Amino acid sequence: MTAPFGGLPRIDKRPGATGVDAHAAATWRECCARSAGLEGEADAAARQIIADVRARGDAAVVELTARFEGRTLTADGLEVSRERWDQGRRAVSQEIAAALQLAADRVRAFHRTQTHQTTGLKDEHVSLHSRVAPLERVAVYAPGGTAAYPSSVLMAGIPAKVAGVEEVLLLTPRATDVVLLAAHLAGIDRIFEIGGAQAIAAAALGTEHVPRVDKIVGPGNAYVTAAKRQVYGLCDIDGIAGPSEIMVVADATADPQLVAADLISQAEHDRLACAVLVTDHPPLVEATDAALARQLDDLPRRDIAVAALHDHGAAVLVSDRAALVEAANDYAPEHLELLVERPEAMAERVRRAGAIFVGPYTPEAAGDYTAGPSHVLPTAGAARYGSPLGVWDFVKHTSVLMLGAQALREQADAIVILARAEGLEGHARAVERRLAVDEQDR
Amino acid sequence: MTAPFGGLPRIDKRPGATGVDAHAAATWRECCARSAGLEGEADAAARQIIADVRARGDAAVVELTARFEGRTLTADGLEVSRERWDQGRRAVSQEIAAALQLAADRVRAFHRTQTHQTTGLKDEHVSLHSRVAPLERVAVYAPGGTAAYPSSVLMAGIPAKVAGVEEVLLLTPRATDVVLLAAHLAGIDRIFEIGGAQAIAAAALGTEHVPRVDKIVGPGNAYVTAAKRQVYGLCDIDGIAGPSEIMVVADATADPQLVAADLISQAEHDRLACAVLVTDHPPLVEATDAALARQLDDLPRRDIAVAALHDHGAAVLVSDRAALVEAANDYAPEHLELLVERPEAMAERVRRAGAIFVGPYTPEAAGDYTAGPSHVLPTAGAARYGSPLGVWDFVKHTSVLMLGAQALREQADAIVILARAEGLEGHARAVERRLAVDEQDR
Repeated sequence: MTAPFGGLPRIDKRPGATGVDAHAAATWRECCARSAGLEGEADAAARQIIADVRARGDAAVVELTARFEGRTLTADGLEVSRERWDQGRRAVSQEIAAALQLAADRVRAFHRTQTHQTTGLKDEHVSLHSRVAPLERVAVYAPGGTAAYPSSVLMAGIPAKVAGVEEVLLLTPRATDVVLLAAHLAGIDRIFEIGGAQAIAAAALGTEHVPRVDKIVGPGNAYVTAAKRQVYGLCDIDGIAGPSEIMVVADATADPQLVAADLISQAEHDRLACAVLVTDHPPLVEATDAALARQLDDLPRRDIAVAALHDHGAAVLVSDRAALVEAANDYAPEHLELLVERPEAMAERVRRAGAIFVGPYTPEAAGDYTAGPSHVLPTAGAARYGSPLGVWDFVKHTSVLMLGAQALREQADAIVILARAEGLEGHARAVERRLAVDEQDR
Repeated sequence: MTAPFGGLPRIDKRPGATGVDAHAAATWRECCARSAGLEGEADAAARQIIADVRARGDAAVVELTARFEGRTLTADGLEVSRERWDQGRRAVSQEIAAALQLAADRVRAFHRTQTHQTTGLKDEHVSLHSRVAPLERVAVYAPGGTAAYPSSVLMAGIPAKVAGVEEVLLLTPRATDVVLLAAHLAGIDRIFEIGGAQAIAAAALGTEHVPRVDKIVGPGNAYVTAAKRQVYGLCDIDGIAGPSEIMVVADATADPQLVAADLISQAEHDRLACAVLVTDHPPLVEATDAALARQLDDLPRRDIAVAALHDHGAAVLVSDRAALVEAANDYAPEHLELLVERPEAMAERVRRAGAIFVGPYTPEAAGDYTAGPSHVLPTAGAARYGSPLGVWDFVKHTSVLMLGAQALREQADAIVILARAEGLEGHARAVERRLAVDEQDR
């Protein structure tokens, strides 16, 4: 029993005789206003789980895993042993192993270009630097269930190791053989077969067997997301993930079969996934609907894709090329595909997108697996301010300041005046006392 | 009526005949376990305020400002007019203006060294880049009350403008003349005289008069902090701030008068401020206590400083130089001063600190005002994973991917194999369809 595909919901943003249709404008605003902010239903549950892990440590993790996943663990068995890891990864087929290796090599090569260097100023009187260093221990979360994606282990683990993180943990409720191999190729140091909010709590707080980490990265379900949000401040997190999204911007030159294929490759992820077509060429909408209907027909995950396209899909009609760019910037998509004339020129004008896929030979699927940049990207409009997961997520800066006596003398008046203007006499005296000592010494 | 100063609480971490004193070890663990994570009392109030601003916009901001601050505003008057701004900043004394100008120049020069460049790989078949761009609109929060610090406006506003942010808003409940001048020197674009959780909500959500921002930075009181935490995901934030902290690491070469002066310059901020001395030279503890008693005597903010030193101060005794470094790494202080022999060598061994002040001529007060690096730093142990506010806070990356037909062909097998291994047939087909089209064309 499968739902029929009734075509993408339309949003016509072309100005008519009376301006843009009010309903279309409101629908579009709603599309663009999506966000991962503020509390959801999972927050109360996550709060309880974190409190429980804080109070009882591994015993809570074991019990919650039994309750939510029906898996029987022991505290000693939270970590995947080296023997099981090696055995599992060696059981992966040659074909998949070679594909994962190619992906890992490309992802590593790309991330090695993301260099971070200590910067600053130095002369004979003063040395001021922003020193860069890797985080010491981080956790990569990889979901289980229908969304057990070994590719995500590469996409999060490799940037961490390229940054130089000493110990990278993998947290996953289902360490399949392929996941074990991906962890090996990514350079993951330890694997804990735990998931959900209890895994996030264990890594953020530390338990008897799970060491406390400096940062947790990687997407998860609503409980994982709620837990990450709540532990932010105990450790760092990479952001608050919403459902995955694609916007395909296409003009008269686009092949509707490719437009449909790429919308489907997003929609098949999840009933909540967003797949939006924006075009200035009205016939493309009809042609894409027809192509979608045909391509959905024998898709294994047809029902998920149809639901996503109906509920979170859209075909947005705009009047010209400038409006295509404007729509992309308004929406700030996680993935943006440009199937247009001169796509490189258009890419330069887009200010808000997690990743931009330029031209017909760059399907989102290439970015998901092998191209090189991480597929962990800002969702839900976070491309306004967020970045793809990268080496920058795994380094921190420390300011290192050293003034000589003369440098301090040169700044002393300004410091003292500003400190007193702010009512902080102790600050002023800390400087004056040094100059007084200095006078005596001379 | 002033409280007597009874000396810094002692934590003796020197191993005795029976190892480290259990009470000392526990006290030290508690010191190091401080964190800004998980909910506090202000969360429920902030939640209400955000919901109110979401529902009623400026009307809520006006009403909440009257209720919490006793200030009468109108929606039209939330923004400081250009006339009032210019008039106010010109009223600042020549002396303070010159000091602020010196600070602004130095802070700007330092932050110009924090460059961020687009990086990536390019050959004839593929172009993969991490494109860097500034955020478009951010808000700097500057508290009012006893903590109206014009210096913070420079320390947050200048990195944002150096990064190239188009529009930087200042949110402050008390736009004094000096704050107005600091905003001018920092290059702030617009000033809104609003504060508290309602200011954070207005900037994160956008109201009739306050534009929605991409990121909010700068420390505030407990309500501001709670609100920032809750709006994270609607926009970005710079972190979750706790009380300010200093750790002074000192050996037998340190001058106890300077140690005391610097502990006081932190303790005078706030009754919750932390001021910790670590030394391997027991006589320094007694000498510092004596110096503290004398220096506190005529300090204007004596009561605040005494309370902070009693409740959150400590003198930690360790046995050798290596243990000094270990204590700094355990504590991960916001500010770390090294008053020791060969301080530069020690600085290199410290992995966790927001800012390190090296040697006797680098008091924290210099970093607070004029040295150059931002004084907005990770607190509450966040130096494990966080950075000083810097240009990196105001840029984002976008991955830009462009594959040619041959590059896609080379990766196609791996993509298809991995997509099918993950159960995502639509992803595999999106690639196969392109190769099929490609075949037909040839």
